[in-house]
Amino acid sequence: MATSPGESLSAYCERIASEAARSSQLLRSVTGSQKNGWLIASAHALRSATEAIISANEQDVQRAPDFGLTPGQIDRLQLNRSRIEDIASSLEQLAAWPDPIGEVIDGTVRPSGLRLQRIRVPLGVVFFIYESRPNVTADAAGICIKSGNAVILRGGKEAFFSSDCIVKLLQKTAESHDIPPQAIQLVETADRDAVGHLLALNQWIDVAIPRGGESLIRRVAHEATMPVIKHFTGNCHVYVDAAADLGMAERITVNSKCQRLGVCNAAESLLVHAKVADSFLPNIYRALSAQGIEIRGDEATRTRIPNCQTASESDYFTEYLGPIISVKIVESVQDAIDHINHYGSHHTDTIVTDSVEAAELFLAEVDSAAVMLNASTRFHDGGEFGLGAEIGISTDKFHARGPCGLRELTSYKYIVRGTGQTR
Amino acid sequence: MATSPGESLSAYCERIASEAARSSQLLRSVTGSQKNGWLIASAHALRSATEAIISANEQDVQRAPDFGLTPGQIDRLQLNRSRIEDIASSLEQLAAWPDPIGEVIDGTVRPSGLRLQRIRVPLGVVFFIYESRPNVTADAAGICIKSGNAVILRGGKEAFFSSDCIVKLLQKTAESHDIPPQAIQLVETADRDAVGHLLALNQWIDVAIPRGGESLIRRVAHEATMPVIKHFTGNCHVYVDAAADLGMAERITVNSKCQRLGVCNAAESLLVHAKVADSFLPNIYRALSAQGIEIRGDEATRTRIPNCQTASESDYFTEYLGPIISVKIVESVQDAIDHINHYGSHHTDTIVTDSVEAAELFLAEVDSAAVMLNASTRFHDGGEFGLGAEIGISTDKFHARGPCGLRELTSYKYIVRGTGQTR
Repeated sequence: MATSPGESLSAYCERIASEAARSSQLLRSVTGSQKNGWLIASAHALRSATEAIISANEQDVQRAPDFGLTPGQIDRLQLNRSRIEDIASSLEQLAAWPDPIGEVIDGTVRPSGLRLQRIRVPLGVVFFIYESRPNVTADAAGICIKSGNAVILRGGKEAFFSSDCIVKLLQKTAESHDIPPQAIQLVETADRDAVGHLLALNQWIDVAIPRGGESLIRRVAHEATMPVIKHFTGNCHVYVDAAADLGMAERITVNSKCQRLGVCNAAESLLVHAKVADSFLPNIYRALSAQGIEIRGDEATRTRIPNCQTASESDYFTEYLGPIISVKIVESVQDAIDHINHYGSHHTDTIVTDSVEAAELFLAEVDSAAVMLNASTRFHDGGEFGLGAEIGISTDKFHARGPCGLRELTSYKYIVRGTGQTR
Repeated sequence: MATSPGESLSAYCERIASEAARSSQLLRSVTGSQKNGWLIASAHALRSATEAIISANEQDVQRAPDFGLTPGQIDRLQLNRSRIEDIASSLEQLAAWPDPIGEVIDGTVRPSGLRLQRIRVPLGVVFFIYESRPNVTADAAGICIKSGNAVILRGGKEAFFSSDCIVKLLQKTAESHDIPPQAIQLVETADRDAVGHLLALNQWIDVAIPRGGESLIRRVAHEATMPVIKHFTGNCHVYVDAAADLGMAERITVNSKCQRLGVCNAAESLLVHAKVADSFLPNIYRALSAQGIEIRGDEATRTRIPNCQTASESDYFTEYLGPIISVKIVESVQDAIDHINHYGSHHTDTIVTDSVEAAELFLAEVDSAAVMLNASTRFHDGGEFGLGAEIGISTDKFHARGPCGLRELTSYKYIVRGTGQTR
């Protein structure tokens, strides 16, 4: 399915997008048991092909320094037996989930006797643009097919050989389960213009989902002619209220910030009520320092902890994705809410408090995808929420907000059954 | 709130959009009873101001010929005592609906003890661009405020004085119910560039909803930097199956086509199974002719009814919104499905049949917002579906499909309550 000789880039993009659209129509008559059979057979196929996948991955790893990948990035790129096992078992777990398609969301009988049902249906064709980790290739294909959608995968060029090998295995298994192999396609050219061509094809592609750096997401949102589900930054906050249990506040702050630094639901900013600043700040300073975290604070913070850098206006807007946290002392829960709604990214924010009044105000007024009480921000995740695998966490309010899994890749239609009714 | 002296168009647009965004934040703490109180008081205010509204409307009606409005359009523009009563009572009906905001959509307790709830929240700021009927102004403002959204209304210039008078009454009533009056704003300039400026302001406006001709919708979809809910054409089909009750098929066809010609859920195309063409076509020809409807048919249709014009390829794509219907003879329910998915506009399509097999295939495979069995297409409507008032019928698959009412103008957020959980 690679570019045919003499085929222009735009012709190639139109071909794969129209094939995906045709496949998405054929997916309408594929049953849940065919989809689950494909997921399980794909898991087996990946395990059996472990050697071939590792050797394709080695090609990527060898080229990695040429692409300027850091050792950390190369580590995330690398596949071994246990990582391939993880990829395979993710597909098997997906098979165990109920089929979202055909679910009756709600239904009524009208006074006229018309029986109405709202039924879950696929979106159609998903164009997924993502970073270089090759496990995402299999996950995304699995989630899209399970939710009845065809998918066009545009992975990072750094993982091309790994992703290509995985996609070919998934396509081959699809064929033997009467699922159109063109329902799973990898963009087989490194040409960056391919993304632009595909984003113009809204007659065939129903939604674009970019996952990666902010500039990629902005580019896709700007160029796309179809709806986009965006996964912007997670500038997440922990707010320690005047009525907080300070031991709990320390555990939640440390867990939110340190459990994993480079993820979107890690805390990047700590707000502390002035009434508990004297007792809380020295303790949290020791605890975070012990984990190698640097604190940048406002004036009131700097007077309370040693060697604290000044937090600038831009620090409060920053998703560090690393060992830094910004700190600010606030005068009230309302101040905390206003700060979060202004500087935050509407991703995940948590309050630590024992006050019902403060808790309810915070939960109601913070305008984020997930707002938490006495819990670590790190719980904002499709798996932790019990929603199954996710293709990302949406910071949009439109269509999908928060974990974006099987349900969020669907639409619905109204089915109306009558006995001859007219108006 | 009109353009201030010396204020540029872009400054004016930025001012009203930022005011709307600020108001939408204040709407978060407005209760359902305040919103309902405002709706009921607004209905009273409109009734009390009947004379003033009629005199504002007269200004519009006097200018109407200058804008090239047809007598039919002028009739729709004109307000009288009974039409103002209808507008007022629509607002009162809206007050009787449950508040969508704060609804718990679903919820679970996780093994960790975390309690999750998905809660309905407003989208934020709605930019509504619509045709000239002044009753839409009050309806749209009512639906937006009831669903917790601020709204920027861009009505047709033909109805400016009527809309302006209505909006000022709604704003005044808002003030006395502690609802920010800037939550309801009318774009107070006829300059077409205002729409372009507003469509660029995605930092303040959360969704654009164009309602009107296809070129307006295409322009908005092209220029908007925020999500758009589109209300495209309704090229709706009636398919008369081989197993149809032909008397029912005739009633449903006539009702779908003729009950109201200029609406999006009127039938524009009739598909007839070849097996019943000989018996059905002469009858439907007589019935439709009696209503003044012209038939354009394929070759097989033309041999069966007198003086039938040929339907061209483009006829099958056309939403006539008038006294014409295209007709085609098909060989199977699958042919009908393929025709509808290709030529239709994914709005409303109905099958008339007594065959379970044909019915279920049609309901499953036709990819439209509403798919019906033995019922008139005219039932696809928020009121008929029991969903209350609607701002339009979405032909999109993303976010909102079909009737777009209170629920479709909302998003959701996850509320997570813990007792100190960390990962």
